[in-house]
Amino acid sequence: MAKEAVLEITPQSRDFSRWYIDVIRKADLMDYAPVRGCIVFKPDGFELWERCQAGLDRRFKETGHRNAYFPTLIPASFFEKEKEHVEGFNPELPWVTEVGGERLEEPLALRPTSETVIGYMYSQWIHSYRDLPVLINQWANVFRWEKRTLPFLRTSEFLWQEGHTAHATEEEARAEVMRMLDVYTDFVENDLSIPVYRGQKTPSEKFAGAVETYSLEAMMKDGKAVQAATSHYLGTNFAAGFNIRFLDRDNELKLVHTTSWGASTRLLGCIVMVHGDDRGLALPPLIAPTQVILIPIGGPKDRERVVAEARMILAELQAAGIRARLDDREEFRPGWKFNEYEMRGIPLRVEIGPRDLDAGQVVLARRDTLEKMAVARPGVAGVVRELLSAIQQNMFRKAQTFQAEHSFSAEDMKELAEIVGTTEAGTEEETAGAGAGGEAGGEARSRIGGFALAGWCGRGECEARVKEETKATARVIPFEIPSHLHLTPPKRCVACGEPARFPVWFARAY
Amino acid sequence: MAKEAVLEITPQSRDFSRWYIDVIRKADLMDYAPVRGCIVFKPDGFELWERCQAGLDRRFKETGHRNAYFPTLIPASFFEKEKEHVEGFNPELPWVTEVGGERLEEPLALRPTSETVIGYMYSQWIHSYRDLPVLINQWANVFRWEKRTLPFLRTSEFLWQEGHTAHATEEEARAEVMRMLDVYTDFVENDLSIPVYRGQKTPSEKFAGAVETYSLEAMMKDGKAVQAATSHYLGTNFAAGFNIRFLDRDNELKLVHTTSWGASTRLLGCIVMVHGDDRGLALPPLIAPTQVILIPIGGPKDRERVVAEARMILAELQAAGIRARLDDREEFRPGWKFNEYEMRGIPLRVEIGPRDLDAGQVVLARRDTLEKMAVARPGVAGVVRELLSAIQQNMFRKAQTFQAEHSFSAEDMKELAEIVGTTEAGTEEETAGAGAGGEAGGEARSRIGGFALAGWCGRGECEARVKEETKATARVIPFEIPSHLHLTPPKRCVACGEPARFPVWFARAY
Repeated sequence: MAKEAVLEITPQSRDFSRWYIDVIRKADLMDYAPVRGCIVFKPDGFELWERCQAGLDRRFKETGHRNAYFPTLIPASFFEKEKEHVEGFNPELPWVTEVGGERLEEPLALRPTSETVIGYMYSQWIHSYRDLPVLINQWANVFRWEKRTLPFLRTSEFLWQEGHTAHATEEEARAEVMRMLDVYTDFVENDLSIPVYRGQKTPSEKFAGAVETYSLEAMMKDGKAVQAATSHYLGTNFAAGFNIRFLDRDNELKLVHTTSWGASTRLLGCIVMVHGDDRGLALPPLIAPTQVILIPIGGPKDRERVVAEARMILAELQAAGIRARLDDREEFRPGWKFNEYEMRGIPLRVEIGPRDLDAGQVVLARRDTLEKMAVARPGVAGVVRELLSAIQQNMFRKAQTFQAEHSFSAEDMKELAEIVGTTEAGTEEETAGAGAGGEAGGEARSRIGGFALAGWCGRGECEARVKEETKATARVIPFEIPSHLHLTPPKRCVACGEPARFPVWFARAY
Repeated sequence: MAKEAVLEITPQSRDFSRWYIDVIRKADLMDYAPVRGCIVFKPDGFELWERCQAGLDRRFKETGHRNAYFPTLIPASFFEKEKEHVEGFNPELPWVTEVGGERLEEPLALRPTSETVIGYMYSQWIHSYRDLPVLINQWANVFRWEKRTLPFLRTSEFLWQEGHTAHATEEEARAEVMRMLDVYTDFVENDLSIPVYRGQKTPSEKFAGAVETYSLEAMMKDGKAVQAATSHYLGTNFAAGFNIRFLDRDNELKLVHTTSWGASTRLLGCIVMVHGDDRGLALPPLIAPTQVILIPIGGPKDRERVVAEARMILAELQAAGIRARLDDREEFRPGWKFNEYEMRGIPLRVEIGPRDLDAGQVVLARRDTLEKMAVARPGVAGVVRELLSAIQQNMFRKAQTFQAEHSFSAEDMKELAEIVGTTEAGTEEETAGAGAGGEAGGEARSRIGGFALAGWCGRGECEARVKEETKATARVIPFEIPSHLHLTPPKRCVACGEPARFPVWFARAY
């Protein structure tokens, strides 16, 4: 009898942070690297990222963008060209100061984002209105030495894409910012089955150097927020810093308007925390590297014909363009395999045993609902394909229901604190942080938070007070309040009680 | 009349290094970055790399490998674990010594290659024979601060893939080394139309830390060599350094045998230097981002019907899976477009004018032979597809003929020096180096070199003498001498005249 791994996943309700670490480690998505705050993306984790890359890259190219690659190392002087940018990123920058034993004259930063070096290159490339727009994307590794780290969500090095575009007019640049926000929404909602709230960031939460930042905010199963992607209108800030000017049709020299937009490997953390449960991962079919796992059942005397049939089904599924795999290892029992692939989040399981063979059927088991159903063997590929599509949609609906059930409007600070799940300010957050930062878990946490829709007067001090008293940050000023929420934005600022100028989604965030 | 760019490509025969820089800049493949020795991969250059990635990645996956991602930063202490490795790479390493203004306790190197950090991770992952083999590949940026740089061929930062595998036995590891050498050969010869000589590196030329290194050597049009890809048998060197042990079936604890293998963005330099000519780039169809360019011809009165027909053909070609584009810009003349797309290396041009329309034909122009031919309009997609395949094969044949015509056997040092193109030792090489290192060109160079097949006694001092006197390095000890070369390896060492133990391909190299 083969050794069978014991599943030890902390229940979400007991300690969500610990659950998260348990799941990503047991599903073999990552490992800790021997450098502070860095992780290794193991093949099962990296494969998820490859699928995110494929889904986004296709959309970027369909909207006219092309990929390029800029250097990782950025001269120190470049960061001085945009004042807010340098203040925002300086505390997190790793610096190369020596090469081969010799000191560099000017230290080189490892890019935290590439507006500066790309701005410099654009100033070399753009001379006339004929050179515009420039629509470029880069897939790259970036570096931000943040104090608290959490695999996928906040690591010293992470992988992302960063789009950088330059336009002749503000109008065109703003249209690009919104187009890319739509591209991200399409990908995150349709491919990842993750519903998002979209909107604009408050000034204190916007990207360092941007005029305006827009984002998609997803709700994790502990009610906390993750910014799934962002899109920035940079105005002429970087164009002025790097002197990116063009001769316009009217023969005047003008600054270009630039945008940037990005999504990163934190999407992997979102997938885990939005869809996962106490059994482990649950992957939406469109993003799942393996969509269907086939498991033969039955004793030695039936083995040959059962496995032969399983191979036939495998071939049929693959021919239908379905990413299917067969686990016909003899050293593991079917029951162990059921648990294993549920833990790994494979959307659909096909079981084939001797009795199924005799009855001309197979058994399908869904990861999202845990339902099992027998279906006729002929035409099974068509049924599987429809089921995968149904699973994809159901996972979105489930996540959207959770999101709606944990979205409330807050009239005052007390309500807001309750909604976002802060019981006693400070203590719980620190516990979560400790659990998240490594393997050590904190005390049991049962309080699941949510998103609070509150009124805001628009003053930074009120936003700061919310953060201080509730640990919640302003996620976005929403474009619209989805009608299925049946929420009316409060009329007064949640902090000062003055008339509200904006509705704001507040939540604690990763 | 629109401004038309003047083609100013230095002829290859006048100054090959300058020709190379002219071509890659005019074809818009790259630009110099504001960091020493770094380049920007512009969209047209990066697209070539994306196609290389796709062709290699597919083959890696077909041979059972999976992608992962390891951290860029490697602790200083890791380099001490394998003695030859640290000596080989230390002079080229950039070091991160500070983060956010604070000094790090242990400096972190930017990876020049990842055997060390991957070796460390494998020591955590591998415990039993059941965990083997580990077959992982990584696509990444790497850093080597080399003295002389040349776009694509030698840059401070470059892009590559590095495969790292671990095996229970030497036999299996050695089979992997050869399998990957075959994978590279298949890709380079079939997708890039670049013929290569394959073999083993001499001890002085092997990878720092390897037991044996194998490589593919391609011949550029100036007769110099580029190592197109390498595959290393690392024995138990890194396993011992990082303590990667497994419990074997016989219950003994053993060191794993590891391999590594890589190909990089220098492949782009190879494509340019093997196929390019005085008109510019020439891209093999399988790797060309655009395979066919359609150009409408004729005056304003025919424009509408000509462009309509061109669009029809475009749709037909695209429906047949051909990467075709239409340039129907009115501000450029057809003649300008012909030159432009020849310079950019598009394999096939389709011209459509009013007379062609009336005659029910189109004109096809091949980039490889510069032949033009009229073909019947019906079924044009099929003809184009066959032609692309013919171009692919012809480009390989042409390159192979060039390779054969510049491959000779050398009996003594004088012959060897003549073959590799060194007229007076030293002077010419330095000129080439200056031209290559930046934009400045050197003196006119007309001497085209080649590869010299010489005998070698096996002693490092003889190899060193060849290098000193002729600037040629031992490229490989070939597996076999292709029969079409009709060459017999000399029986005596080219340097000392003692009986030769190995045949060696010598050449000057990039």
